[in-house]
Amino acid sequence: MIKLNKEELTLAAKLAQLKEASGTHSPSIFTITEQLPELNVKVDACFLSNPYATDLFLEYLKKELIDTNKLRDVLEFYPSQNEVIAEFIGKSIHINKENIIVGNGAIELIQAVMHRFLGDKVVINIPTFSSYYEFATEDTEVVYYQLKKEENYELMVDDYLSFVKKVNPDSVVIINPNNPNGGYMPYEKLRYLLNNLKELKNIVIDESFIHFAFEDSNLALISATELFKEYANVIVIKSMSKDFGIAGIRCGYAVMDKLKVSQLLRNGYLWNSSGLSEYFFRLYNRADFFNKYEGVRKRYIKEALEFFEELSKIPQIKVYPSKANFTLIELIDGTTSSDFISKMLIKYGIYTRTCSDKIGLNGEFIRIASRTKEENQSIINSIKQMFADDSK
Amino acid sequence: MIKLNKEELTLAAKLAQLKEASGTHSPSIFTITEQLPELNVKVDACFLSNPYATDLFLEYLKKELIDTNKLRDVLEFYPSQNEVIAEFIGKSIHINKENIIVGNGAIELIQAVMHRFLGDKVVINIPTFSSYYEFATEDTEVVYYQLKKEENYELMVDDYLSFVKKVNPDSVVIINPNNPNGGYMPYEKLRYLLNNLKELKNIVIDESFIHFAFEDSNLALISATELFKEYANVIVIKSMSKDFGIAGIRCGYAVMDKLKVSQLLRNGYLWNSSGLSEYFFRLYNRADFFNKYEGVRKRYIKEALEFFEELSKIPQIKVYPSKANFTLIELIDGTTSSDFISKMLIKYGIYTRTCSDKIGLNGEFIRIASRTKEENQSIINSIKQMFADDSK
Repeated sequence: MIKLNKEELTLAAKLAQLKEASGTHSPSIFTITEQLPELNVKVDACFLSNPYATDLFLEYLKKELIDTNKLRDVLEFYPSQNEVIAEFIGKSIHINKENIIVGNGAIELIQAVMHRFLGDKVVINIPTFSSYYEFATEDTEVVYYQLKKEENYELMVDDYLSFVKKVNPDSVVIINPNNPNGGYMPYEKLRYLLNNLKELKNIVIDESFIHFAFEDSNLALISATELFKEYANVIVIKSMSKDFGIAGIRCGYAVMDKLKVSQLLRNGYLWNSSGLSEYFFRLYNRADFFNKYEGVRKRYIKEALEFFEELSKIPQIKVYPSKANFTLIELIDGTTSSDFISKMLIKYGIYTRTCSDKIGLNGEFIRIASRTKEENQSIINSIKQMFADDSK
Repeated sequence: MIKLNKEELTLAAKLAQLKEASGTHSPSIFTITEQLPELNVKVDACFLSNPYATDLFLEYLKKELIDTNKLRDVLEFYPSQNEVIAEFIGKSIHINKENIIVGNGAIELIQAVMHRFLGDKVVINIPTFSSYYEFATEDTEVVYYQLKKEENYELMVDDYLSFVKKVNPDSVVIINPNNPNGGYMPYEKLRYLLNNLKELKNIVIDESFIHFAFEDSNLALISATELFKEYANVIVIKSMSKDFGIAGIRCGYAVMDKLKVSQLLRNGYLWNSSGLSEYFFRLYNRADFFNKYEGVRKRYIKEALEFFEELSKIPQIKVYPSKANFTLIELIDGTTSSDFISKMLIKYGIYTRTCSDKIGLNGEFIRIASRTKEENQSIINSIKQMFADDSK
């Protein structure tokens, strides 16, 4: 059972303060290194992003914007309006632009959907990404559906359906794969669920981690984006931060019935993309970029699977099944999540995420992201070392 | 009176289509050059931004982010939360962070304020920036106050006050300096107005162009930001796009009563800054950057004043008084605004803004931005040449 020494306890208290100030989210790596300069953070495994995709984006940015001096135009001038960028996205994902709204990160669209469409009552599965309940206004009652620990927090469709029928909400939210556990609902199961929820006003499907999920051995891309054509109540929300490794640029979009898109655009969201966001979405629409992206996506998935496999061999932790780029681990040797993340950060320079603030998790949980192969190895070594030191 | 030849008419029709697709805004320079590659656009005088400030920002960006390779961190990682960035801004403008909300451009905060606080009825002065009436939802009635042509579209306080008393709105919006004419209301006049509007729920003051206004010969910075301390109904909205020349980064903030800030942050606006926006606001808080900025701000104001002076000597146009970085001109020789902007763009490569879509302007109006000294000279020469060719 990991314990902190006196010096570590002092730093851990400061860390806890920073965490407290960030509410139900984690303080950014900037905030941490700025506020606690004595820490030497080497790996940010709190951060859910494909670093190889960041490399790829930066390669293009350097070649096309920095070396050519075109970066100036991107930063100086107004980017295009929402509908113009929606058109590029539409070409990339084969959806009409009328069904797409672009967001300043998916979070802006989560907010827009929560504030404008959800209605009187929404069912949200827990544990989950906290913004889904925090952004609900006083006009919407949030009813929680508890994912069951004994089912590894995966969604059991029939139990869920009977819960929803009983609660009778206007809307439901499904994150697939779910955050913080990475549980994935296969496409056909999702379709079965939608067939049984046709009477709902909205089914919000957050696919922010879908590029890391797969159903075949070739790791082909999957998505529920097109389902709004069959099920008019489906709203798919998609962040580009994780799969493309560009959280700092703030890119996201949502696909939904065109009446909903026009309702949102009628009095807002006109210029919510930055110049770099527009540049990214233009890249996303180019075959040369996308083909290279597919390479780094598949490489990253394979390495993440190896990482989860290695983690699962460590006896002091339980690793939950994930088809995302992170895994939920439970500390089963009596270590608290707070001591785990503090020791990992202070002694090994590895930033992991405590889940102590996540409602719906009963136990001591940490979420760890897969990073580069070398960083993953360093995470594994550090955890093993930490538990080994502990047993001395 | 400017007329187009056959070839120019064809291009002008395509331009009109692009304008049509952009609603009450102008198509971006990217859209124009992409859709009409036959045009050779040399000067974007539609665009209201200090190019010397862009130079300054790019100088810092190159030195601190590109050359050091720190740009990666800015693009890869999540930026800080709203309150963290509000704290930097607060230090820069000497306001408590509790009274500040950061926006993805001022436009996001215009939307937030319009949707959340305005109440049943709002008075908006016309001509104005169209988002102020377009973003009003169906729950808010917009009542227009017509700025008078015979007063050069400047706001006459007593007439305005008696109008407001009669209409009895919940809120009013004042853009100072106003867009599209640049009319400026001096600080003491504004204070007189606020003293007489204490019963209103909200007085929205948009200061997006305030850095170009001045009341003394030293061109010292002025602002109404602190007035919310005396008048709790004041909400100041501030874009950074124009004065700092970084429209592509999307930076803005608003200052208001802390209860209103916390109401907005309670269920939204958590991560609405990009990495570059955070970098900018950190720079804004640094004396070395700010001192250099003051230099380029004053230089730009002086050159703009010279530019307006030169424009006012052209007999075919009337130049309206402006304390912003643009001026409204009226075509008084029978030329239509559409022919003017088409000829300027097609023949001279200078993009100016027609005001034919602006409600509250009766006549043929163009808005022209001040750019670099050289570009301004090129605008002057082109307009003179155009009218000279016409009279041959």
